Amino acid sequence: MSDTAPTKIITAERAGLLLERLRERAPLVHCITNAVATNFSANALLAIGASPAMVDNTEEAGAFAAIAGALLVNLGTLTPETAAAMRLAIAGARGAGRPWVLDPVGVGALAYRSDLARALIAEAPAAIRGNASEIMSLAGETGRAGRGVDSAVSSADAVEAARALARRTGAVVGVTGEIDYVTDGTRLVSLANGHALMPRVTALGCALSAIVAAFLAVGDDAAESVAAALLTVAVAGEMAAGEARGPASFATGFVDALYTVAPGDLMERGRIKT
Amino acid sequence: MSDTAPTKIITAERAGLLLERLRERAPLVHCITNAVATNFSANALLAIGASPAMVDNTEEAGAFAAIAGALLVNLGTLTPETAAAMRLAIAGARGAGRPWVLDPVGVGALAYRSDLARALIAEAPAAIRGNASEIMSLAGETGRAGRGVDSAVSSADAVEAARALARRTGAVVGVTGEIDYVTDGTRLVSLANGHALMPRVTALGCALSAIVAAFLAVGDDAAESVAAALLTVAVAGEMAAGEARGPASFATGFVDALYTVAPGDLMERGRIKT
Amino acid sequence: MSDTAPTKIITAERAGLLLERLRERAPLVHCITNAVATNFSANALLAIGASPAMVDNTEEAGAFAAIAGALLVNLGTLTPETAAAMRLAIAGARGAGRPWVLDPVGVGALAYRSDLARALIAEAPAAIRGNASEIMSLAGETGRAGRGVDSAVSSADAVEAARALARRTGAVVGVTGEIDYVTDGTRLVSLANGHALMPRVTALGCALSAIVAAFLAVGDDAAESVAAALLTVAVAGEMAAGEARGPASFATGFVDALYTVAPGDLMERGRIKT
Repeated sequence: MSDTAPTKIITAERAGLLLERLRERAPLVHCITNAVATNFSANALLAIGASPAMVDNTEEAGAFAAIAGALLVNLGTLTPETAAAMRLAIAGARGAGRPWVLDPVGVGALAYRSDLARALIAEAPAAIRGNASEIMSLAGETGRAGRGVDSAVSSADAVEAARALARRTGAVVGVTGEIDYVTDGTRLVSLANGHALMPRVTALGCALSAIVAAFLAVGDDAAESVAAALLTVAVAGEMAAGEARGPASFATGFVDALYTVAPGDLMERGRIKT
Repeated sequence: MSDTAPTKIITAERAGLLLERLRERAPLVHCITNAVATNFSANALLAIGASPAMVDNTEEAGAFAAIAGALLVNLGTLTPETAAAMRLAIAGARGAGRPWVLDPVGVGALAYRSDLARALIAEAPAAIRGNASEIMSLAGETGRAGRGVDSAVSSADAVEAARALARRTGAVVGVTGEIDYVTDGTRLVSLANGHALMPRVTALGCALSAIVAAFLAVGDDAAESVAAALLTVAVAGEMAAGEARGPASFATGFVDALYTVAPGDLMERGRIKT
Repeated sequence: MSDTAPTKIITAERAGLLLERLRERAPLVHCITNAVATNFSANALLAIGASPAMVDNTEEAGAFAAIAGALLVNLGTLTPETAAAMRLAIAGARGAGRPWVLDPVGVGALAYRSDLARALIAEAPAAIRGNASEIMSLAGETGRAGRGVDSAVSSADAVEAARALARRTGAVVGVTGEIDYVTDGTRLVSLANGHALMPRVTALGCALSAIVAAFLAVGDDAAESVAAALLTVAVAGEMAAGEARGPASFATGFVDALYTVAPGDLMERGRIKT
């Protein structure tokens, strides 16, 4: 978090450079994610050029996080066993100086995962990526909790919560919705790309969080990495819309677009507002 | 179960009304399902207009079932932990007066899941959806058990078993196959839609059971809801057939068709026989 | 393993006969595989004509392996519980005289799964299918271990390790990469089919190992079955390439091609070198 005068978090040009670097380096991304998201997230990471590894047992998670480029922890289908693996992986990542991302799926609606999420944000995540309900809940704004994994509120409503959460935790916070927002507590950027079919594909947000981890693994500034990931995914969503006949053909086109999206697409389509 | 003179379980028009209501209300459907089916079922629910949540840990399953609109319990890849979560979720659903659906995957072939299924049908499921082997096994007809998840017998052979199972349990029973049957023990309807590629897509039956739960969440009569779900899914299968080159493009088209299928498609294509 | 003069492991014609037999018999294939691969592997097996069953709990795995035609054990997302189920399933398969396949995902990079893999290869697998790093690690060649599930070395570099591993274990060893190799320790065949997008689809290698199990269930000679499976999958990959716009549409086309690939395609496209 910068104490100096705010500068721009991202430009389309910088996002394109990070995307190219990601494809050159093919970072190993360690994902402890939910059962719904695991295949789709691995395919999304492979498509964009990263190397996914889904290691979620307590025997291996700690050691593996230390050799991966970044770690994703997603609370979607939590069990006591995977919660233990998450803690070991976070310790492994922190010990090796690797960034980790928290995706607080469903936090707010259920006490078990809410308690775990609150404990984990004390473990210095580089980034937190969620929908408006999840971010507001983590920031301590109760009373507007989501039902399950849906967000009942718009991302714009969560901007101040995101900023407060970023200040309190030191993490960059990304709130996704019709408009995406990224803040490090001081700076804020809004990204107005994406497509209406994106929330109709399960685990698309989970895959996005995995891609955030991939950009963190190759970036120098966490806010820039998070914003570059969100921009790239939203632009890929727009690119996928053309031939979609429904959510499944859209999902296929989306993963194909993660493979083909180029810096030029980010320049041409990016609607970035700081 | 009605003791009065049997009336029609479903008409295409009523199915269309329920489909529209489902899309308006977007019911939250709590699924405890198998590892093969989880992503596909969530996508199928999102496509048709419901809101899926896959909460299968013992810490959260009971509380979550009480806030969801309906619950699906699928025995596909059972473990002692998920079995415990199923029991808690069923208790939560019953306590809150929410309907729950049993999908007895593989029952008959394996003692562990067969014993659990027999215990669970005492917990007042609103509906049971299976293939012929599974329904015959649950009804107590031994000796023609399936091998694994396949059904070695046709759905027509299981009609009497389905009726007996419905009478004994109070659940509406749906048997799927080349022809689908729905019975509440008294009334019976047959649905002659669908496509030959449907059994070539893994977890399509599991997704169907999740959609049964979604229709139960918005319906007033369980038999009507089950039949509307089976009809809608079978018609979506027919709609998907046109451009399919094999089972994977068929599966994509099927989920797209769940998104686009309209009451008019049910009216035009439905082959309902009471 | 033959001690007589080496004969050809496979011809395209023999592979075509095995493919036809697989479709006639629709062998039940018991898979204990990883969370990323389970849906894709089941769909791949259904598409090619086999009958998949993903039974990975300790209560059922042993009994089920004895009634299935073949067993796949894949170490991708191992837990102590699934490891116990694997051991029971292997014992069940061996007791019933059924072949089993080991897919040593990620072996070499992580001690826990490497130790388990070394213990399991003493349990007489009919086949071992891995990438170059995994096979070299299992053969005892350290120092060139992969990172995660990637292979840092080419399949050609692993040919001698594969031969040594086959001699030591009695298993047929398949090493996949740009060129695929199959050896029983004496004979060797190389297969030069496939497509550059195949490694961009997660779990494609895992699905291949499941298909190896399906061919073992219907074959008489393990080396022939493994080679026929690898050839069929690589040819299906080539058939899928035409209309692919990226890895997701490629994956759809690949599963469709598993459904349509015919003996004639193997004859026409097979690049088999002994």
